[in-house]
Amino acid sequence: MVHGVSAGYRRIAYDPLHAFARAAIEACGVSAADAQLVADVLVASDMRGIESHGVARLERFYVDRLREGLIDPKAVATVERETATSLAYDAHNGLGHPVSVRAMAHAIEKAKTSGVCFATVKNSNHYGMAGYYATMALEDGMIGISLTNTLRYSPPTYGREVMLGTNPIAVAVPAGEEDAFVLDMATTTVALGKLEIAGRKSQKLKMGWAIDSEGNPTDDPAKGMLGGLLPLGGYGVDNGGHKGYGLGALVDILCGVLAGGTFGRQHPALGEFLRPNDTGHFFGAMRIELFRDLEAFKRDLDRELRTFNQSAPAPGQSRVYVAGEIEWEKARAHAAGGIPLDPVIWESLRRTAAKLNLPPPVGIDP
Amino acid sequence: MVHGVSAGYRRIAYDPLHAFARAAIEACGVSAADAQLVADVLVASDMRGIESHGVARLERFYVDRLREGLIDPKAVATVERETATSLAYDAHNGLGHPVSVRAMAHAIEKAKTSGVCFATVKNSNHYGMAGYYATMALEDGMIGISLTNTLRYSPPTYGREVMLGTNPIAVAVPAGEEDAFVLDMATTTVALGKLEIAGRKSQKLKMGWAIDSEGNPTDDPAKGMLGGLLPLGGYGVDNGGHKGYGLGALVDILCGVLAGGTFGRQHPALGEFLRPNDTGHFFGAMRIELFRDLEAFKRDLDRELRTFNQSAPAPGQSRVYVAGEIEWEKARAHAAGGIPLDPVIWESLRRTAAKLNLPPPVGIDP
Repeated sequence: MVHGVSAGYRRIAYDPLHAFARAAIEACGVSAADAQLVADVLVASDMRGIESHGVARLERFYVDRLREGLIDPKAVATVERETATSLAYDAHNGLGHPVSVRAMAHAIEKAKTSGVCFATVKNSNHYGMAGYYATMALEDGMIGISLTNTLRYSPPTYGREVMLGTNPIAVAVPAGEEDAFVLDMATTTVALGKLEIAGRKSQKLKMGWAIDSEGNPTDDPAKGMLGGLLPLGGYGVDNGGHKGYGLGALVDILCGVLAGGTFGRQHPALGEFLRPNDTGHFFGAMRIELFRDLEAFKRDLDRELRTFNQSAPAPGQSRVYVAGEIEWEKARAHAAGGIPLDPVIWESLRRTAAKLNLPPPVGIDP
Repeated sequence: MVHGVSAGYRRIAYDPLHAFARAAIEACGVSAADAQLVADVLVASDMRGIESHGVARLERFYVDRLREGLIDPKAVATVERETATSLAYDAHNGLGHPVSVRAMAHAIEKAKTSGVCFATVKNSNHYGMAGYYATMALEDGMIGISLTNTLRYSPPTYGREVMLGTNPIAVAVPAGEEDAFVLDMATTTVALGKLEIAGRKSQKLKMGWAIDSEGNPTDDPAKGMLGGLLPLGGYGVDNGGHKGYGLGALVDILCGVLAGGTFGRQHPALGEFLRPNDTGHFFGAMRIELFRDLEAFKRDLDRELRTFNQSAPAPGQSRVYVAGEIEWEKARAHAAGGIPLDPVIWESLRRTAAKLNLPPPVGIDP
């Protein structure tokens, strides 16, 4: 059951979860305004069912790193270079979410006049779900783009050394009656979480997910954790692994080299988590009306999305989806019935509350 | 041997091949200026070793279609909407290459002032190699983007009906001493040519390349030709097929819906080759100096590309490449030693010459 509550999961409503995330970040010395933005992004991720990028990461990715001095709670982002169509931000090692919300909002504002605007951000940190920022453009009738580099997990095609992150690409396009098209994808075949879950459950990996530390393809989760995540398309070139590698490299060029920050081998690898990340981001906003009338565009996009939905399913399948559809459906279900959280996440939230002397969040289920 | 001449291949120099392609297109009633642009794009593809998109297609994709009235040789493209950062072209069913060269050059020219410019093209035809147009931005210190939709070959994830084309994405980024980074990739796992070649050689397909007409994965080239090409990532979602599908849909949204042309199921399928294609394209140019100094960017990109090249190869591999590298090396080899062409292509060129009463092109090899 896609929208059901899995075994052991307990639900929480939006407001108490948001309030807890905000209070936790604020308790680390972050301003109320910035803490609000972090909570907005994290809980939006849980609402859309992207559990891996929501409050699951509050403790280790944000609270612990703020407390350890690896992220500066007081950093104030600055604009280093600006034109009518561009912004180059420096986050000064602050949290990734506030600078990203501001850079994207700034790009949207400028695109209202100039038609298009792109923004780079350097010296930032993990920004959560890439799609959040892309969707910010929708209400102004724009296409939104959001990219980020990450810790190094993935080797180049034919290589055995991890050089690139999961480097996601997110693009949001406004529709009319249909939900917006929201593509939000890692450029690796899977994210690290899939290997961790397979390891916990003693399951084999699919071939094409990972290599071992020698650079050979592996279906062993433990060996994959020590090796690397293969780019989308898998090992070698037979199934297009060089395409995923090329997309991942492009994301690092835009978020790292173009932003003037860290790139390639300079990124921390998984074992080097305890140093500043110098993550880079790349955002964009483009008005639909540069090319045609917005309402006509939305009508046609509705038609395109519906023809995908209404096309004949493959044997054994019941539905054909479009990008973002499952997440929008989950967001509506969670708004109505609460957000189901894994027991592991509840435990992390309670531990976070204890670390910060905060009351733990209270769920719906007993 | 990567740059060697394969068995049966015979070489031809750039000039006579270009002159023949130009003469053939001109003999179909196309202006000398437009025919020159078509030849530029086609022969550039053969120079870079992308044989599938070069003069191999001269006869069936361009000459035959011009002669059958499916492409208008006299069409003059018009700009339907224009701002400082955007252009919306209508190709009026002319050849794809001339309008694409002009739209990309126009976008580059506008980006010199505005920093960024995007161009859509509707009502066009097959434009050859996507990467050609992206690389046009390089000499002006810009990042170039080129996308196109195509005939329908590919089903959505979980679907069995072909709804999208191979919908390539090309992005070119200028480097300093290193060759430019040029990503030029279909968003399907492989292109149709791979199925045709496997069929001719009685080889099985890799699983993840194709489905049969029932929507089941297949390794049979004949069944795959009747079914469809799977999106990058393959069948279902286990290896990320929904990501390739999402990228292909995005390309169709930008080239079809945003351009105001044909999209989704409206595109001709493989069996509907004999009607106008109404292909759409999307181009972009963005100045590096919006974000940082061009020379500093190029130095850093050189460093990034070299660290990929110098990273340790996987077992059994000798080199780690970056996107575009193999094609640049082939272009230099072919400039020095001539362009090797498959006997099947020579035959097509001779047939084209006979159809048009032109002298056939003369090669280097006996």
